[in-house]
Amino acid sequence: METVWIRDVGPRDGLQNQRQILSSDQRLQLIRSLLKAGVSAIEVGAFVSPKAVPAMAGSDTVLAGLAGDVGEFSVLIANVKGYELALAAGATRVAIVVASTDTMNRKNIGMDTTQAFAFADTVLRRALADGVHASCYIATAWECPFEGPVPTSSVQRQADALLNSGAQEIVIADTIGAAAPAQVASLMRGLGQQLGSERLACHFHDTRGMGIANAYAALESGIRRFDASIAGLGGCPFAPGASGNIASEDLVLMLNQQGYDTGISLAGLAEASALARQLCDHPAVPKSLRWIQQQRDKGALS
Amino acid sequence: METVWIRDVGPRDGLQNQRQILSSDQRLQLIRSLLKAGVSAIEVGAFVSPKAVPAMAGSDTVLAGLAGDVGEFSVLIANVKGYELALAAGATRVAIVVASTDTMNRKNIGMDTTQAFAFADTVLRRALADGVHASCYIATAWECPFEGPVPTSSVQRQADALLNSGAQEIVIADTIGAAAPAQVASLMRGLGQQLGSERLACHFHDTRGMGIANAYAALESGIRRFDASIAGLGGCPFAPGASGNIASEDLVLMLNQQGYDTGISLAGLAEASALARQLCDHPAVPKSLRWIQQQRDKGALS
Repeated sequence: METVWIRDVGPRDGLQNQRQILSSDQRLQLIRSLLKAGVSAIEVGAFVSPKAVPAMAGSDTVLAGLAGDVGEFSVLIANVKGYELALAAGATRVAIVVASTDTMNRKNIGMDTTQAFAFADTVLRRALADGVHASCYIATAWECPFEGPVPTSSVQRQADALLNSGAQEIVIADTIGAAAPAQVASLMRGLGQQLGSERLACHFHDTRGMGIANAYAALESGIRRFDASIAGLGGCPFAPGASGNIASEDLVLMLNQQGYDTGISLAGLAEASALARQLCDHPAVPKSLRWIQQQRDKGALS
Repeated sequence: METVWIRDVGPRDGLQNQRQILSSDQRLQLIRSLLKAGVSAIEVGAFVSPKAVPAMAGSDTVLAGLAGDVGEFSVLIANVKGYELALAAGATRVAIVVASTDTMNRKNIGMDTTQAFAFADTVLRRALADGVHASCYIATAWECPFEGPVPTSSVQRQADALLNSGAQEIVIADTIGAAAPAQVASLMRGLGQQLGSERLACHFHDTRGMGIANAYAALESGIRRFDASIAGLGGCPFAPGASGNIASEDLVLMLNQQGYDTGISLAGLAEASALARQLCDHPAVPKSLRWIQQQRDKGALS
């Protein structure tokens, strides 16, 4: 049985975009419910300005709370200071983000693309030397909200550069949920041929209802590493029902049904999902969840 | 630009599974909003027992109301009497349903599979002689709620038999929304090789959140004919939010974005969707619709 690796980004990308700000204890509760469901890779926090992102304040407390738990716990950082704070707090896995376009880099991280890649190079080399696992996201890899469609060649060049800087993993991210599956297949097939698919992951949002189709297209293109978010947490906190990341429930159900080993229990995921929606007052219910709950209630799920 | 043909089944498969029963005038209003959006193939009613399916009573009035409109208007029938009533009401396109399994045939149409295929053979031959366009659905083609997974060979044999009886189109239907995209690709590729894809269509429900991924998998397997339902109408009327057919909005958005010509306007579809949700007090909003509305409000859609 072939394995697909899933990282739940709900406790970071999800929570950061919800209206409610959870306490460190609540965040730990959510993370532990994911661990209990068999999710072993989790983005647990961010070392960024607590003024800009109040939901991620206290990520050091969250990391400390996980000291006795087993899992691949990663944290997002946005600058060298964040990297140092993360390491001081015990992080062994970090993630950084660069965008595919100049305008998005300026808007998102306040640097132009040259500066963003120089920053990435610095952190990735340092992480390599420090024995820290570093992932790098290429945001808006298919379409930029400011510059429109992104040329494939540009993403290919960027991914290559980031691997050369020492990234352990490149995450190709459809940050605004704009890609259609044929576009995903085209880019991911090309990147896989160029760089090998082992170090590539995909990160999809469900803004236009194509998130799971995009995951399928990436899977068919050889990708075996995916981000997803419990209960589909995320999206704009002020547009109820607006789409966040693809829901872990939807992704795991598809993968399980297609015979992949994810190591994740759907019944456990339904518990984590209920907790996520309760903690966040999150109204959106992943399409698959009703079916998963029915099966669980019939005793048809482990 | 390659064409994909879409039939909106909201006014039949959708309405039949909603709590509200619409008047013939309301049904005509919904059908005309679809025509206005450029949807030219529409399932507009059913000639079945009005006791069993009260929502479809008055389908003769609906057909008569459409006498001056241009479109491929089809109606569902379940027996020879229904066929005769449909023809008397002016129908030129009919659809019949047989299920892939014995138990489903008994539960759904009160015949065993031999009887169901004998009925299909009778109607399809008669339609061919009458110059009536006849489609035949193979329901629960991937999984039967009573008998479980359906062997591919069995669906292949059935599709072949129905074409031999004179069916103009075979619609492979995931009636309970149980298929995963890899299973769709496997069956549809095999059927396409065996029978040619020109006479094959797919009908998906979104029960497990894989409906659009399934449509993409079928598209990649060469299928160019799809059912969808405006606003995703359908599903169980007593389980709010439970999934019906894949939403026309989601399907058309994906196809448009992948460069196919559907002849359908997304802005027009947003109007029809608003009407459908208003007439039916239907709470579910297709994922794509929010984005479509934003684009329309920005003047970015025709």
